[in-house]
Amino acid sequence: MTPTITAFERSPDRGKGHARDMRVRWALEEVGQPYDVRLVTFKAMKEPEHRALQPFGQIPSYEEGDLVLFESGAIVLHIAERHAGLLPSDANARARAITWMFAALNTVEPPIFDRNLVQILERDEPWYEQRLKSLDDSIRRRLRDLSSRLSDADWLDGAFSAGDLLMVTVLRRLHGSGLLEEYPNLAAYVARGEARPAFKRAFAAQLAVFTAASAG
Amino acid sequence: MTPTITAFERSPDRGKGHARDMRVRWALEEVGQPYDVRLVTFKAMKEPEHRALQPFGQIPSYEEGDLVLFESGAIVLHIAERHAGLLPSDANARARAITWMFAALNTVEPPIFDRNLVQILERDEPWYEQRLKSLDDSIRRRLRDLSSRLSDADWLDGAFSAGDLLMVTVLRRLHGSGLLEEYPNLAAYVARGEARPAFKRAFAAQLAVFTAASAG
Repeated sequence: MTPTITAFERSPDRGKGHARDMRVRWALEEVGQPYDVRLVTFKAMKEPEHRALQPFGQIPSYEEGDLVLFESGAIVLHIAERHAGLLPSDANARARAITWMFAALNTVEPPIFDRNLVQILERDEPWYEQRLKSLDDSIRRRLRDLSSRLSDADWLDGAFSAGDLLMVTVLRRLHGSGLLEEYPNLAAYVARGEARPAFKRAFAAQLAVFTAASAG
Repeated sequence: MTPTITAFERSPDRGKGHARDMRVRWALEEVGQPYDVRLVTFKAMKEPEHRALQPFGQIPSYEEGDLVLFESGAIVLHIAERHAGLLPSDANARARAITWMFAALNTVEPPIFDRNLVQILERDEPWYEQRLKSLDDSIRRRLRDLSSRLSDADWLDGAFSAGDLLMVTVLRRLHGSGLLEEYPNLAAYVARGEARPAFKRAFAAQLAVFTAASAG
């Protein structure tokens, strides 16, 4: 059964692939599962019809027959559990890969997401520089620890997993900040993720939505 | 095999149960799994020995034979997958319960956690009042959406699940802020979680650590 996901009709990042549908697209591409996309406007996202799928009025949602899911992390886990290629078969290795999924979303993403938000919303506030510095310090602590754990490995724990997929999407948000480059093994790790054919297909698909919207 | 978790030797919240070991204790109590606790000091948390278990130098970690996990969300999911009582057996209902786990940690927790942090770290900053107001607005948007989805149900999706367990631990952080009381069904939802015998046993266990440390 072909699942349907929702995505922004017009991506706020102009097709850079930071919207959370990118993670789901990438996971579906990794496992070779075709999918449909329904685009939603910012206005429609807040309407009851979309909120029935996504109670917080966000994207992505995921529909597969009777099943409706939201939260990109939960959707990626669902895909990884039902297809081969994103989680190891050994039970302990599988639990560790899932640990990295939660680490990406609950430990590494929050200060990085805040940084993006502050740059958009607080640029004209008197505290902007100080707040950005404080967030950069938090981000550096996470990156230092992650860099240290990754060491010279290709991926966080053995083969590429859904944990790496989420971590790379989180770290990609730092492109342009200069922070990633302070940790060369992390910059290489992100580049390794972005070089995967499945990533490239997912990236092209979300970019095509933005390009079409801009031309329209 | 009895798992071992780590927890603060001296809880920064003075035993209110907001440290992240509380979630793991509660999950273990719900499924009736005994566990051991190894207490760590703030200094020891940052040492290589602990970082081998928890790369970000935090608590809790989870050891069960050869398996080492971190991230409270991942540990709760691991417990829920290996014992009955925290996830439905129907595949779709199970995926939805896991969606609420991610929603608790990735959508609802970040502004609530930030509020706690800002109250400790930014109280003397010139932007304190404005920043608190902005966070309160973000939190209210999440609470409004969550309240609307919960409606008059006891739990988020059918029977009590690991999704409710995490959501209640996240919302509990708002005790004393007055925000939870603006949404009576959410306040009742949190009270319902706190009234569970497993919650009470877990809460008493973490409080006993603080009480013993204070007396020592």
